[in-house]
Amino acid sequence: MKCGVFHTPYNPPSRTPRQIYDWSIDMARITDEAGYVDFMIGEHYTLAWENIPLPEAIIAGSLHCTKRIRFAPMAHLLPYHDPATLAIRIGWLSQVLEGRYFLGVAPGGHHTDAILHGFEGIGELGPIQLEALDLIERVWKREPFREVGKYFKAGFPGPNDMPGYNVDIARNGPWGGPGGMEIAVTGLSMKSSSMKFAGERNYSPISFFGGTPQMKAHWDTWASAAESNGYKADRSRYRVCRDVFIADTDAEAKRLAIKSGLGHTWREYLYEIYKKFNLFDGIIYDSGRNIGAADINEDFLAEHVWLCGSPETVLEKIERLMHQTGGWGQLVVNMHDCSDDPKPWEESIRRLAVDVIPKVSPLPLAA
Amino acid sequence: MKCGVFHTPYNPPSRTPRQIYDWSIDMARITDEAGYVDFMIGEHYTLAWENIPLPEAIIAGSLHCTKRIRFAPMAHLLPYHDPATLAIRIGWLSQVLEGRYFLGVAPGGHHTDAILHGFEGIGELGPIQLEALDLIERVWKREPFREVGKYFKAGFPGPNDMPGYNVDIARNGPWGGPGGMEIAVTGLSMKSSSMKFAGERNYSPISFFGGTPQMKAHWDTWASAAESNGYKADRSRYRVCRDVFIADTDAEAKRLAIKSGLGHTWREYLYEIYKKFNLFDGIIYDSGRNIGAADINEDFLAEHVWLCGSPETVLEKIERLMHQTGGWGQLVVNMHDCSDDPKPWEESIRRLAVDVIPKVSPLPLAA
Repeated sequence: MKCGVFHTPYNPPSRTPRQIYDWSIDMARITDEAGYVDFMIGEHYTLAWENIPLPEAIIAGSLHCTKRIRFAPMAHLLPYHDPATLAIRIGWLSQVLEGRYFLGVAPGGHHTDAILHGFEGIGELGPIQLEALDLIERVWKREPFREVGKYFKAGFPGPNDMPGYNVDIARNGPWGGPGGMEIAVTGLSMKSSSMKFAGERNYSPISFFGGTPQMKAHWDTWASAAESNGYKADRSRYRVCRDVFIADTDAEAKRLAIKSGLGHTWREYLYEIYKKFNLFDGIIYDSGRNIGAADINEDFLAEHVWLCGSPETVLEKIERLMHQTGGWGQLVVNMHDCSDDPKPWEESIRRLAVDVIPKVSPLPLAA
Repeated sequence: MKCGVFHTPYNPPSRTPRQIYDWSIDMARITDEAGYVDFMIGEHYTLAWENIPLPEAIIAGSLHCTKRIRFAPMAHLLPYHDPATLAIRIGWLSQVLEGRYFLGVAPGGHHTDAILHGFEGIGELGPIQLEALDLIERVWKREPFREVGKYFKAGFPGPNDMPGYNVDIARNGPWGGPGGMEIAVTGLSMKSSSMKFAGERNYSPISFFGGTPQMKAHWDTWASAAESNGYKADRSRYRVCRDVFIADTDAEAKRLAIKSGLGHTWREYLYEIYKKFNLFDGIIYDSGRNIGAADINEDFLAEHVWLCGSPETVLEKIERLMHQTGGWGQLVVNMHDCSDDPKPWEESIRRLAVDVIPKVSPLPLAA
């Protein structure tokens, strides 16, 4: 098993863009040093709690202080970009990173972002994403074309498109060629249409954790769609996002987690959203407790929602989840803004990569 | 007088995006240390000789190694962006830079970039830029609206646009407020419509050098348009871009310039473009020589097109140009890729800021 980072980012609205930038670069450096393999950065336009509208800035700003970790926008929200502009920028940036880059795509999931872009809501965005993807892939082929779609237009210049003198056309396709770039998609709800979409196109699946029934459903949906389209459903490509806090003992981990940025984000932001969208249901089911979302307190969060405890406890929780769900390839830690007291968080981040993940026993191969 | 940098970039097509990124960051650091005040970065999508499609990557990547220099995309090509996306990204990045940021805008001037974006040519782009600017300015006001234009749509969420729970809307407007950001526009041709456009909107003028008649025309066009619209025409806002090479003696400067990236760019790239678009005309006029563009050789370039020579010679050439044109506020050096032999170029860059610019005598105030 490998480990990665999902940097939504979760930042208190009081943080300035500069503080968010600085924290992001610090976390890229520290996770690279600790052995994390992927650093994924969200893209949102209106959310004060998740305020990076330009994930490319974090990727480019981390280049000087990282060596191995791969970066991804997770995800570029395709309806909000000119597809030709985005195709070239993605390709060029993947070459700047010399391959330490992969791509997340999404239609956009936040209502206020959709309003900002002149839409009435997120319901309209699905088909726009599809057209954008088609045009991006055509630009990457570097063959002359012109296409006017329903939502966008794009083209690629050929020998007959020169302005009276010969222009040397930049080779800004993806590192590794048009088919050489990993593309990934996140899934959240139990019946995730994005997992089906990912499987159909051979894009990698990333599951935001919502309990074992949802994790299994995400895998089954993705694997079934992939195999129906002739792709191999390889569990090592399955990434699962979790909140993690590790300290010397279970009690210390719980105490530090609750007072950390992780605890703060749940109290001030995520709890309301999870309650509103019934995202606790699968986790409550797993807990065996007869409670509702309104009954969830910090003890429940630390015990059932977060992977929280000593290294031994967290290792045991990961292995239990593997046996319950069939396993996956990368444990992705949700990043939280702990810049007010970074040391316990940084220590937790390091211990996951150094003390826990290398000890995870692989599952026996499925029959 | 101050000095700045225009980083088109001019890079041989053999350079990789990573080499261009590394050279760009190095030049930002060195010019910041030397006392340059502005570092402007072009945005192009198809030009192998000018290959930065994502100037934000250079800006964000230079933050860790610069202290005072201001950055600008020069320019964001507005028809090639979703305006709401760009408005938020500009505002957020200006806040990451804590004000070390200003904005260049342009409709796009390269035919193959227009083809890439599905247009038949650059002639269609002017009105699209105007609509984009209007929407960007509306987004920056942060007041609820919805607008469907001819080319784009955008909006801003208000209290009635919440998705069932309250969203804290990120404050990603420009550093200094919606009216607090300097916006600048470049002009090239003698009868530059962009200089008129800049003056009308109180955007700063930047002149690509093409001889004294063109420099005077650019100023007159801008100043007249500014004053007609109630703005002060302040010469300190006028930036002029030049090729510069300084060494111990005139002969040494000429020898080093010709073998540097500056000379290479002119031989392999700029000479053909300048000839094709009659951009040498004003410079030939200034030289008093009875020649055509086809007669221009490296001696002529070094003598008349470039500011090339010892510090004393370059100072004298700058002061002569000031007297001929009425003066300007910032001498902007065109950056060239000299990464094969960087030392003479870096020394020239430093000498302009340290040995020449501080000695420029201000012009007597115009009557």
